[in-house]
Amino acid sequence: MAEKKLGSSTVCLTRNISIMSGASVVGPKEGNGPLGAYFDLIIQDDKCAMPSYEKAEGEFMKRAIDLAVKKSGLHIEDVDLLLGGDLLNQIVTAAFAARDYPISFLGLYGACSTMAQSLAVGSLLLESGGFDTALCTTSSHFSSAERQYRAPLELGNQRTPAAQWTVTGAGATVISSLYSSNQKLRAVTLGRVCDYGISDTNNMGAAMAPAALDTLLTHFEDTGRDPSYYDLIVTGDLGLLGSQIVREQALSRGLILDDKYMDCGAEIFYPEQDTHCGGSGCGCCAVTLNGYILEQMRRHVYNKVLFIATGALLSVLTSQQGETIPGIAHAVVIENEV
Amino acid sequence: MAEKKLGSSTVCLTRNISIMSGASVVGPKEGNGPLGAYFDLIIQDDKCAMPSYEKAEGEFMKRAIDLAVKKSGLHIEDVDLLLGGDLLNQIVTAAFAARDYPISFLGLYGACSTMAQSLAVGSLLLESGGFDTALCTTSSHFSSAERQYRAPLELGNQRTPAAQWTVTGAGATVISSLYSSNQKLRAVTLGRVCDYGISDTNNMGAAMAPAALDTLLTHFEDTGRDPSYYDLIVTGDLGLLGSQIVREQALSRGLILDDKYMDCGAEIFYPEQDTHCGGSGCGCCAVTLNGYILEQMRRHVYNKVLFIATGALLSVLTSQQGETIPGIAHAVVIENEV
Repeated sequence: MAEKKLGSSTVCLTRNISIMSGASVVGPKEGNGPLGAYFDLIIQDDKCAMPSYEKAEGEFMKRAIDLAVKKSGLHIEDVDLLLGGDLLNQIVTAAFAARDYPISFLGLYGACSTMAQSLAVGSLLLESGGFDTALCTTSSHFSSAERQYRAPLELGNQRTPAAQWTVTGAGATVISSLYSSNQKLRAVTLGRVCDYGISDTNNMGAAMAPAALDTLLTHFEDTGRDPSYYDLIVTGDLGLLGSQIVREQALSRGLILDDKYMDCGAEIFYPEQDTHCGGSGCGCCAVTLNGYILEQMRRHVYNKVLFIATGALLSVLTSQQGETIPGIAHAVVIENEV
Repeated sequence: MAEKKLGSSTVCLTRNISIMSGASVVGPKEGNGPLGAYFDLIIQDDKCAMPSYEKAEGEFMKRAIDLAVKKSGLHIEDVDLLLGGDLLNQIVTAAFAARDYPISFLGLYGACSTMAQSLAVGSLLLESGGFDTALCTTSSHFSSAERQYRAPLELGNQRTPAAQWTVTGAGATVISSLYSSNQKLRAVTLGRVCDYGISDTNNMGAAMAPAALDTLLTHFEDTGRDPSYYDLIVTGDLGLLGSQIVREQALSRGLILDDKYMDCGAEIFYPEQDTHCGGSGCGCCAVTLNGYILEQMRRHVYNKVLFIATGALLSVLTSQQGETIPGIAHAVVIENEV
């Protein structure tokens, strides 16, 4: 049975939960970025020959799910349940993708924290003994997100310096307590909602940074560890500004992150790709984890990884009603078996 | 450790998980309905003196959370995590409510299946041993749902005969494996996404009925039980039409539901309240469970209850793009300890 210190938010997993496979499917801009070589599939037509960007996003997710299942060596029938969500209203990308798979579905919403949330919930469900194998997935699409959250694409609005570019891509991970691999999920830390009063919807990094820091500090307090335990501490999509805030605020609390720390949003595009503060969206850390990070773990470049994904829990309506932007961050610990 | 037959969707819980309390908070129309006497709090001002219906919905949820914690005899600090969701885009009711509580938050989206989904996921997380006590919550509000999904309230649109009336209300349930009560969560069945091609957004009952039936049949197949095992089989918000479909289709498959079967949507309003096919929304079964059903279990009117909540996984955009309406249903088994 899992272990938890009373009153903490961190659960140490004891059931030998393996990552069987990870798949990453991206659009052309992501394919041309620094991590391009690590992605399983780069779809040059970001509309996937579909009649809308929303339906295209569904295609990205389904390709990622199919690839993850294929890479795991399992069949979809071997997977007990699908856990996922996305940024679209009523998480329709995940819900409509799930329609194509004859297995149980749990819809999650944690905005851009969904990759970590689905891995955390998925591994806890395996830990319960009730399920053996789960598929965790999320996606985002620049064109569906932009027109839902901001403005019609055709307007060609000027973007502010703090803005980030929503990643077009989907990631999927097959995890199992029945089948085994060298990559293990060892612990999860479930985050709290944090709101430091940021209301600029073009500065998500600053809105989410407090949640990332809160989960980071909680994780170290709960586990008694410090950053030296990990080879890599990675946040989801804080971007250049948000990750700088986390680095500085962690330092002011005695946590030296140094070059162990990386943010997927800050890494996924080249500066000359003109994304301002970097990448964002559920897909950002989903493809970076399932593409780059898991591959680097297989090569033993990293053996102990703390993966923290952050989400901004706003809606268009809450911002229009003058609300600030609450953030949340969930974390999972992935380790190579020695 | 939980038990599951391989390939099934049903988990039998073994960790003695108790329902410590349930709270129900409703608006005036629900308070005037047949179940009015069972609700903890009837708020006559359905705007809760807030500047918008969306913020009012948040107040309903927070009142339900506070009441559930109070009724459980615990403090919010005794609760490890909050699981919840709602119908608003980006589940902002739950996310903004969670901001007020210093505990971990997991956002869920299962449309009107959220009460069962949060109880199912919550009890599986307790089953994992990682957490001891959880709070499961959901809400809906007629005025916030109507203007998000359909049309501005001021239009006063004519409603079709198959339409249902979104319940204004919130429910919250405290569950625990550390503290104990006479009401136990014994099993969960996680549903699949089902789509039988219904595209009429004013006929949610018909869209969700196949999912309810699928989960019902799966549950009986997985457990080897038949309806005779239960005192009450209850669906969430299929309404008069949807529940009639489930009753007939179950019968055609040899399951006689008879007077053991009830649908919260069909029960929550009087015919003369002019809601056409009855109530709907996440709040419908949430307040019926936490108000009426748990109270009737305490009185031993019911001792074994199969609670199935259904969700329609559409968005305004998917309907505008010509999509049909996928449904999902999750189930939990609640039993009095003999």
